[in-house]
Amino acid sequence: MTAALTSVQDENQSLTEIARQLFEELATATGDGVGITRECYSDGENTAIEIVRRTAEKHGLVTSFDAAANFLIRHPSDDGQMPALIIGSHLDSVPQGGNYDGAAGVIAGLLCLIQLMRTGQRPQSPIRILSMRGEESAFYGRANIGSRVLFGGLNEADLAAKCRGTGRTLREALASVGAAVERISAQERLIDPASVTGFLELHIEQGPVMIAREIPTAVVTGIRGNIRHRRITCRGGAGHSGAVPRWLRKDAVFALSDLIMRLDEHWQALLARRLDLVITTGIVATDPNEHAISRIPGEVSFSFEVRSQSHDTLETFYELFRSECRAIATQRGVTFEFDDRVYTEPARMDETMIRRLVRASERVGTTGELLASGAGHDAAVFANEGVPSGMIFVRNANGSHNPHEAMDIGDFMKGVDILFSALFDGD
Amino acid sequence: MTAALTSVQDENQSLTEIARQLFEELATATGDGVGITRECYSDGENTAIEIVRRTAEKHGLVTSFDAAANFLIRHPSDDGQMPALIIGSHLDSVPQGGNYDGAAGVIAGLLCLIQLMRTGQRPQSPIRILSMRGEESAFYGRANIGSRVLFGGLNEADLAAKCRGTGRTLREALASVGAAVERISAQERLIDPASVTGFLELHIEQGPVMIAREIPTAVVTGIRGNIRHRRITCRGGAGHSGAVPRWLRKDAVFALSDLIMRLDEHWQALLARRLDLVITTGIVATDPNEHAISRIPGEVSFSFEVRSQSHDTLETFYELFRSECRAIATQRGVTFEFDDRVYTEPARMDETMIRRLVRASERVGTTGELLASGAGHDAAVFANEGVPSGMIFVRNANGSHNPHEAMDIGDFMKGVDILFSALFDGD
Repeated sequence: MTAALTSVQDENQSLTEIARQLFEELATATGDGVGITRECYSDGENTAIEIVRRTAEKHGLVTSFDAAANFLIRHPSDDGQMPALIIGSHLDSVPQGGNYDGAAGVIAGLLCLIQLMRTGQRPQSPIRILSMRGEESAFYGRANIGSRVLFGGLNEADLAAKCRGTGRTLREALASVGAAVERISAQERLIDPASVTGFLELHIEQGPVMIAREIPTAVVTGIRGNIRHRRITCRGGAGHSGAVPRWLRKDAVFALSDLIMRLDEHWQALLARRLDLVITTGIVATDPNEHAISRIPGEVSFSFEVRSQSHDTLETFYELFRSECRAIATQRGVTFEFDDRVYTEPARMDETMIRRLVRASERVGTTGELLASGAGHDAAVFANEGVPSGMIFVRNANGSHNPHEAMDIGDFMKGVDILFSALFDGD
Repeated sequence: MTAALTSVQDENQSLTEIARQLFEELATATGDGVGITRECYSDGENTAIEIVRRTAEKHGLVTSFDAAANFLIRHPSDDGQMPALIIGSHLDSVPQGGNYDGAAGVIAGLLCLIQLMRTGQRPQSPIRILSMRGEESAFYGRANIGSRVLFGGLNEADLAAKCRGTGRTLREALASVGAAVERISAQERLIDPASVTGFLELHIEQGPVMIAREIPTAVVTGIRGNIRHRRITCRGGAGHSGAVPRWLRKDAVFALSDLIMRLDEHWQALLARRLDLVITTGIVATDPNEHAISRIPGEVSFSFEVRSQSHDTLETFYELFRSECRAIATQRGVTFEFDDRVYTEPARMDETMIRRLVRASERVGTTGELLASGAGHDAAVFANEGVPSGMIFVRNANGSHNPHEAMDIGDFMKGVDILFSALFDGD
């Protein structure tokens, strides 16, 4: 425990200044006039990596790129041969995004390594900082590219995916930054999970829970998986709005409203049973070629998404959803047409890592509250590959993926303290 | 009753043939490849008028245009000085519309006049056939132009309205067919309501009720008015679909669904009290610039329409609607932003006319069932100007305003029989 007690707080001022300066440099160099844009495998992300690289090397750390062209920072005493604990996140962003999503995690890791340099402390495993490329799906329609590629997880369709705007393929993008495209294409593993003793990630919370609960940091229990349909079409019968009485209507919008309210009831019932669940219908639209104020909507299309940390809860809710669709189809004379169901596996954070992070939170004076992550993270990829993984959330206002992300630097440094303290737990 | 008994049925075959031929000629001359298009104050409508004019004159009838450029057919014994009963409808159509909406009413009137010529019968008032222009709102965004203009009902904004596609103003359109634009612009009445003893209109049903109930003709009780909002915006809070739990959500789509289901419950309750009511949300859309499967919809826009034959029911339901919006705003943390409320007055058909048409229906062997009209008609304009008005609906499949209108010629002739028979009732 001695190591943890001589924690980052001793030199808080100075590390805080390093963090402030890095966030400022990133904002200036990758600002787009609205927010910040750090396109993966391209100028924005490269610029961000370069900024972090310079600071790391200034503090005596060693930098390199792995076979996936992800950016690595090591302690000079770490020759890369020993199994290591990875602190990872990403430096890319969505277009017109915010400055903290991803970057906070990389900078947090860097600060830990700088502190290790300063204090001469050595955790049991070497600590490596990994900035993975292409975490955001905004440019290639694929998320967590940089972590998935490490485990041989990109197929030919993924590599042929085209960048929005430029049309460049992901294969070309990977080649442009020196990634081992042949090995990636062969779905070779570029990292041995056994060489990773654990994976830790600090990230801003992308929801409003911590603001509402007034907690500066939280320990993540798991990353919600989801079941999605991009587009479901509910078809009834169009007709003159004045001329068709209720008993002869097959109103697609009333049918969809009925469905959503039934799902809302199931949602409340399952929450009362303390299940982890969120449901969303983010896209709803009647057909602009046909719709009119005085026309009974014969058709409405909508998206569907259910998220949970539990595979069972996802499947249970999905079955309720399909069952309500069948009931409404009969009762309201409509049909539902479903596109492909897309399933993304939930990821559980490692119980030992969770306990380590909770203890570290308590040591640095916060409560170590538990929270599920609704958004996906590289940590989920490592967890599902069997690497014991843990995450810390830092309070952040206004959500993420927008220029209004607002993380307090004091909250961030609390997160860094927890991360640093956790490095010595279990030793 | 003698007159009624020597009704159209005596020479049914021949009148049926005239009707068939007219409908065929209209379909051929104004077909657009998909349906039929008879643009008001333009070629399509002019062509249709010309076809009807030729047939009328061939049977010895007298034709003319009034100061609104509406088309008139008179019996040669009618010098136009006596107050008359008008049988009216329209020959214009929506783009790619059907052959019967409007035209059936004009042809029905024409057949009655031809029959009067043949039999030498004379009802107490002269019978005039009036084909009003611009009944459909499709081209100028204004409905019932030809009837409203007769009562001085077009203002400068109406006259400045531009035709979709061509951009021609309604003023230019009226001038192009020889209407008295100066008098119209001065909102002068072009017809004296006292010169009209009554107004009758035959029209295809635009809804599915008569098909469902298996009745060939019906007597219209009134024309539903409506209260509309073109666009209401429900605003909540956008957010990451995975990261915001239910208790912190302000989901605009859930709020709208809640609203629609509450309105559906009120609708059912009011129908149980036998009130006349239909409600429609024809347009619903999340914002395409912002929406995504994984984004809680912060905004959804929708249209609202309530229709009823009763002013009180309209206002009662509208108040329920606004009150539910207020309740949901509080309960779900959203706001509703309303554009201008647009009110269209309901029109009651004249009780005496209704009884006359029911008696005539029974005389020709149908049941004289009563039905509300959901769509607007020129008859509503006459009724609201104090002219005793009545309408007959003829069964029609597939709604109107589309190429699939399907009126059986036998049903149509039953309607003509009723109309003709009603001319002699009250004598």
